[in-house]
Amino acid sequence: MVAVPTSLRGVNYSVTVDVTLRAGIADPEGATIERALPALGFSGVSAVRAGKSFRMNVEADNEEAALAKATSLAQRLLSNPVMEDVVARITSEA
Amino acid sequence: MVAVPTSLRGVNYSVTVDVTLRAGIADPEGATIERALPALGFSGVSAVRAGKSFRMNVEADNEEAALAKATSLAQRLLSNPVMEDVVARITSEA
Repeated sequence: MVAVPTSLRGVNYSVTVDVTLRAGIADPEGATIERALPALGFSGVSAVRAGKSFRMNVEADNEEAALAKATSLAQRLLSNPVMEDVVARITSEA
Repeated sequence: MVAVPTSLRGVNYSVTVDVTLRAGIADPEGATIERALPALGFSGVSAVRAGKSFRMNVEADNEEAALAKATSLAQRLLSNPVMEDVVARITSEA
């Protein structure tokens, strides 16, 4: 068994991927939330949009590679590219 | 009709609220995503956790007030406080 040097193993990055509806796509969930807020006593809140977020640990050589991998997998598995945008960001280096 | 000075109207902040499952709460959605990734050719991704995110414009006097309002409404309307954590962050000043 050959030990793999740390430098070849890559670093674990904590990445958060936000999947949001594209501008112009109707968001009934957000609209319903917005209508419910005044009855709960919250005023001055508008343009509510609902989305999904995914947190994951990504093994990669650097931040750019981690973000690229997370964006790519989110576009293939976690979102509908016709209706949704994907934005990945580094949360921390694990 | 009395015009309201701008200084009394507050500022519109774009706030994003992330609703995530607390540590230790089982996340079948995240586990399913994680199992599906190798078949799509993505390796080195672990600890996938699924959550929700909400973007909204909040009218408030300052950033702290906007974050407090968003956190409060998310805890009452958008999350299950027993199982989920709420984190609000300013995305931009609208």
